[in-house]
Amino acid sequence: MDTALLSADVAVTLLPEGFYAGGVRVGIKRKRRDLGWIVSDVPAAAAAVYTQNAYPAAPIRLMRETLGGSGVLRGVIVNSGNANALTGETGLDDARTMQRAFAERIGAPPEAVAVASTGVIGVPLPMDKILAGIAAVPMPPEKDPAAFAEAILTTDTRTKAAAVRLRAGGADGLVVGFAKGSGMIRPNMATMLAFLLTDLAVEASFLSAAFRDVVRRTFNRVSVDTDASTNDMALVLANGRAGGEAITADHPDAPAFREALFAVSRALAREIARDGEGATKLIEVTVRGARDEATAEALAMAVVESPLVKTAVYGEDPNWGRIVAALGKSGAAFNPAGVEVKIGDVVVFADDRPASFDETEARAALAGNEVAIHVRLTDGDGEATAWGCDLTEGYVKINALYRT
Amino acid sequence: MDTALLSADVAVTLLPEGFYAGGVRVGIKRKRRDLGWIVSDVPAAAAAVYTQNAYPAAPIRLMRETLGGSGVLRGVIVNSGNANALTGETGLDDARTMQRAFAERIGAPPEAVAVASTGVIGVPLPMDKILAGIAAVPMPPEKDPAAFAEAILTTDTRTKAAAVRLRAGGADGLVVGFAKGSGMIRPNMATMLAFLLTDLAVEASFLSAAFRDVVRRTFNRVSVDTDASTNDMALVLANGRAGGEAITADHPDAPAFREALFAVSRALAREIARDGEGATKLIEVTVRGARDEATAEALAMAVVESPLVKTAVYGEDPNWGRIVAALGKSGAAFNPAGVEVKIGDVVVFADDRPASFDETEARAALAGNEVAIHVRLTDGDGEATAWGCDLTEGYVKINALYRT
Repeated sequence: MDTALLSADVAVTLLPEGFYAGGVRVGIKRKRRDLGWIVSDVPAAAAAVYTQNAYPAAPIRLMRETLGGSGVLRGVIVNSGNANALTGETGLDDARTMQRAFAERIGAPPEAVAVASTGVIGVPLPMDKILAGIAAVPMPPEKDPAAFAEAILTTDTRTKAAAVRLRAGGADGLVVGFAKGSGMIRPNMATMLAFLLTDLAVEASFLSAAFRDVVRRTFNRVSVDTDASTNDMALVLANGRAGGEAITADHPDAPAFREALFAVSRALAREIARDGEGATKLIEVTVRGARDEATAEALAMAVVESPLVKTAVYGEDPNWGRIVAALGKSGAAFNPAGVEVKIGDVVVFADDRPASFDETEARAALAGNEVAIHVRLTDGDGEATAWGCDLTEGYVKINALYRT
Repeated sequence: MDTALLSADVAVTLLPEGFYAGGVRVGIKRKRRDLGWIVSDVPAAAAAVYTQNAYPAAPIRLMRETLGGSGVLRGVIVNSGNANALTGETGLDDARTMQRAFAERIGAPPEAVAVASTGVIGVPLPMDKILAGIAAVPMPPEKDPAAFAEAILTTDTRTKAAAVRLRAGGADGLVVGFAKGSGMIRPNMATMLAFLLTDLAVEASFLSAAFRDVVRRTFNRVSVDTDASTNDMALVLANGRAGGEAITADHPDAPAFREALFAVSRALAREIARDGEGATKLIEVTVRGARDEATAEALAMAVVESPLVKTAVYGEDPNWGRIVAALGKSGAAFNPAGVEVKIGDVVVFADDRPASFDETEARAALAGNEVAIHVRLTDGDGEATAWGCDLTEGYVKINALYRT
C-alpha cells in the first residue's frame, strides 16, 4: 500500500490520464482567475457530498437534482467570487444555464456536468461574464491544473492540491485533489469545495461509499469558525483511463484505493484549516481512548472550535485549562478522571490536575506553525482527529470588512 | 404587576431588608477587590443552578454536596482571581475550609454558606489571603453592595446590578441581582456568577422552580464565545424580611414575582453579553414563529454565536447573508422559505431572497451599541431571545495574552 503524498508543489502540476483542467479570469473577482473547469475525455464515475445547510445555494440544488449522490460526469465548471446563494429561482436558472453552456462546449449532456460556485451571497451571477468565460475554454482542452486550483479560490491565500500515486487493479494510477477554503468553514462541510480526480477504474457504488466515509473523517472534521456554508461540495471523479480492472469493495486493492482517497482528502483538509482566515497556525487535535468514534469526534471538535483554545494557541500559551474546560463543555460522555492532555509531546494535564511540565518545552511545542494537541481517555477504542486554526486579529479584520 | 427595572446606578446601591454585603481586597488580583460576601440576618430560602461542564470546579462540587438545587442559606462567600478549578482534592478541601471559616465568622452552620470562585484555572487558592479576608469581614456586617459587585469581577470592565421593587404577598419587596461575566460565556451557563436577593417570603419549591425557568430563558441564552466555564453558578436567596405571606406557586402574586425574577435576570444577562470580552455592541436575537421554543432557541443561539455574524455586526455591515446562513447551519427544523429577517426595523431578507432595503437605514440600525436582529418564521408559536456581542480584535488580544 503506497500512500506517500507527493509534495503540494508537484501535486498542483499533475492531472490523471484523460483529465484536462484550467482556469480563466472572467472578471467576477477584482484580480485572479475566477472560472475553473475540468474535463474527462471519457465518462467518469462520480460521487458527491453536499452541504447540510438549510439554505443550499443554487448550484447545490441543481447538483442534487442532476447528479445526486453519485452518477457519471464528463466535466466540472466552477466560478469563484459569487456563491449564487440565496438568489431564488433566478439563481437556479443561472446554474442550469451555466451547466448547459459548459456541456455544449465539451459535447456532453447537461447532466454530465457538475456546477459549483463560491463567493459572495445573494448577488445574481454575472451570466454574461460566465458565458463568455465558458466560450473561451480551449478546445481541445489543455492541462493547466495550477490555473484551475487558482480559479476556485476566494479569501484563500494559496492554492491547495494533493496527490498520491498508486498501483491498483493492475494499473498505475494517480489520485489528485484540489480544494479551496477558507472562512465559513465547518463540518458538513465548509465554504469548501474539493475536487478529487483519479484515472483508476473504480466501481461506482464502492467509489461513493468510500468517498462518503473519507469525507466524514476528513473534510467534515475541519472547522475554521463553526460557520457551515451554503455552498459546500466535495466531488470525486474516476475515469478508468489508467486501464486495469475495476476496483470494487471486495477487490484486494480496495483498501489501498480507500487509503489514497483518505490521504489526499486529509492533506487538503489540513491545508484548508492551515489557511483559515487570519490563521497563523494549524491545530490538529487527536482524541484516543473514547468510548466510540462519535464521542472522540465530539471531544476533538469541541477543543478545535473553542475560541479560548484558539486564542491561547495564537498567543503560544500552553493553556491546558482551556483545553480541559473545552472537553468538559462538549456534552460528550466520558470519564473526566481518566484524561491525559499533551501539547506536542509535553503532558500538561493528567490524573485530574495539571501536570508539572517544563514551561519552556510547552511553549516550544506551540511555537511552530503546526500545533498538535493529544487527548487520551480510558473509556474505549474510539479515536478521531480534527483540524482547525488559531483565532487572530486577522480573522476579525477580514470578516468585519469583507462585504458579502 | 410592576416590573419596572430601577437604573443600574441605583440598583448597585440597594440591598433587600435583612441582607448585608461587601467586598474586600485580599491580594489575589493585582488591583480591585477580590473577596465578596453576602449575609442574611435570618435563614433564607435558596435555589441554585450550576454549570454542566464535565469538570466542575471545587466550589461547584462543594455546593452540589451541601446545598444541591435548593435549601437554606445564611451567607455567600465569593473570591475572584482564582477559579479553584482543576485543583483536585486539595481544591475541594480549600473550598470546604473557605465555607467553614465564613460560617464561623457569621455564626452559621457550614452548610448554610454558599461558596463561589472565578478566575484562573488550575492554581491552588491562596488560602492564607482568603482566610485573612474572611477574618476582616466586619461584624456586625455592613451594607456595601457596590463593593460586593466589584469583588466578584474578573475581566469585566464594569459592575453588573439590576433591581426591581414590587408589592407581593402583601409586602413591599425588592429583588436585587449582581453578576459577573465576561469571557468563557455560554449556556449552562458561562464563567458567570449571578446572585439574586429578595426580602419577599417565597416558598422554597416555588422559588426553585421559578428560578430554574428564569435561568433557562436568560442566563442560559447568553453566549460570548461558546465556551462554558467550570465555575458557573446562579443563586437566589429569599429571606422573607419584608414580611407578608409566603408566595407559593398558586399565590395570586406568583406571576408578579416570577416576572420580577425574570426582569432582573434578563437585565443581568444583557449586561454580561454587552460586557463580553472585547465587545463594542450587545446583540439581541429574537426568533418568533418557530415550531416550538426549543427550535426558536436553537435558531437564536446559532445566529448570536456565529463568528461571521459577530464580525459583521462589529463592522456594522448589514450582512443578511451571514444571518441566513447561520440559521441554515443550526440543524434546527424550520421552513426556510418562510423566513423574514430584520436588522432593527429594516427588513433585509424575505421570500427566500434579499429584500431591497435602504443601505443607509440598515447601517444606522447597526451603528449603536445595541443591535437587534429579528427573525420571523411561519411554523408555529415558539419564540426565544438570545444575547451575545460582537467579535473584535479586542477579544483576541485579551485571550491571546491573558494567562490562566
